[in-house]
Amino acid sequence: MVEKYKTVLVVGGEGEKCREVAEGYGFQDVVTPGDIIKYNEATTPFRRLTNEERARSRRRDFSKTRIEAIFVFADSRDWASDIQIMLDLAMSKGGYIGTLSDTFDEGPTIYFSHNDIVWSAAHDNVRIGMGALRKMVEILFKDLTKGKELETIAFGKPQIGTFQFATRLLQQWRKEEHHINRPPETVYFVGDTPESDIKGTNNYNENAKNDWYSILVNTGVYQEGTEPTYKPRVNVSTVLDAVQYGIKREMEWKLEEIR
Amino acid sequence: MVEKYKTVLVVGGEGEKCREVAEGYGFQDVVTPGDIIKYNEATTPFRRLTNEERARSRRRDFSKTRIEAIFVFADSRDWASDIQIMLDLAMSKGGYIGTLSDTFDEGPTIYFSHNDIVWSAAHDNVRIGMGALRKMVEILFKDLTKGKELETIAFGKPQIGTFQFATRLLQQWRKEEHHINRPPETVYFVGDTPESDIKGTNNYNENAKNDWYSILVNTGVYQEGTEPTYKPRVNVSTVLDAVQYGIKREMEWKLEEIR
Repeated sequence: MVEKYKTVLVVGGEGEKCREVAEGYGFQDVVTPGDIIKYNEATTPFRRLTNEERARSRRRDFSKTRIEAIFVFADSRDWASDIQIMLDLAMSKGGYIGTLSDTFDEGPTIYFSHNDIVWSAAHDNVRIGMGALRKMVEILFKDLTKGKELETIAFGKPQIGTFQFATRLLQQWRKEEHHINRPPETVYFVGDTPESDIKGTNNYNENAKNDWYSILVNTGVYQEGTEPTYKPRVNVSTVLDAVQYGIKREMEWKLEEIR
Repeated sequence: MVEKYKTVLVVGGEGEKCREVAEGYGFQDVVTPGDIIKYNEATTPFRRLTNEERARSRRRDFSKTRIEAIFVFADSRDWASDIQIMLDLAMSKGGYIGTLSDTFDEGPTIYFSHNDIVWSAAHDNVRIGMGALRKMVEILFKDLTKGKELETIAFGKPQIGTFQFATRLLQQWRKEEHHINRPPETVYFVGDTPESDIKGTNNYNENAKNDWYSILVNTGVYQEGTEPTYKPRVNVSTVLDAVQYGIKREMEWKLEEIR
């Protein structure tokens, strides 16, 4: 990604954090929705930058800036503005803000770091999340272009890349910390959302060399007593129970080896 | 409406303006999204009230408050929070925040003051508006309830009530200001959106006692050179041209009467 795209727009998160993350990943030129609003405040008629936001947003000439990709790294704090800017770019002539494509198929690709419509937070009921934002961008694009389809990419769970990345991280950690230079035999994957965590783990397990073991907890999006859309290998109450389940299973394994 | 509903939630606009408008209309008990967030900050995980917002939001016990209707009077300043709160109520047991209905058909009715997906502002390209927000609430409701339909109501153009209301206002104004106690013979309706302004005017004209004359301007949502979805009686460049067109037409009328 870092080699593929020169200038990227990052969306979401608090303040400048997502820009810092993207620059940390090695992206050469990172812009934010704040930069675009600072360039043209008419972009978002109901949103004025605060003084602090205006100060840290960067001044540049967007008529000469080709935005090559959009990354939604963390949840958007301002849906109306972020959706507007993503649609402006998706409908632009080749990623130049302020232009309008004749064909609506030359805008930058939009990547979302996950695709869950809902997630579980401190509130009793689930909260809407990034998957809902993605859906809105796609639906409004179709509406505004009178029928053109916008294909965005979600790179989080249940996408295979996420599991491959986790596998590489685990292998590296085992090597560096424990000097064991082979992948773990079993990976216990604890999740609260059948449609992403469990679906992804089960799918990945089908072709993985090691055993990816899906555990669903009742303390998140999934509600106890209902039928999960994707079935976990085991269902437990809390994350602590999941950890204990994994440890117990491993210990029994070891015991059998000794006998 | 004022007699029908005791406690209503108003959404949109700057600060407390919509609450003031609703109280001005005579609603007995008006709550805002800010009141709900003040009651339970977990409602909107990515949104903290500012000190000013917290001070002016009202403290109350929402476990004992039945919200009977929701009115979106002006454009939402915070889509994520407003959509979340509208969905929470639409999915609630009879309008009690924090509850979850078993049947998802007992939430308060949601009214939107207009239904335009896009509108024309200072930006070169059209901006997304309240119609987009309405669409998102309906689509996400269907998603979260696994297929239930949410029927919201848009009470602006092209709804007949808006034109009836304008007729009453015009008649009252003519009576009070000009002592003419009859409706105007011709009403020139100037609009920039074929799908709402022109559609509504033409529809209303079919059954109106007087002549509702639709004029479309090129300076707004409608783009010159394209075929409008709903045809106006006349198409002009700007609002000033529309006014001049109406005056000229009326003067010619008068001249013919004299001859």
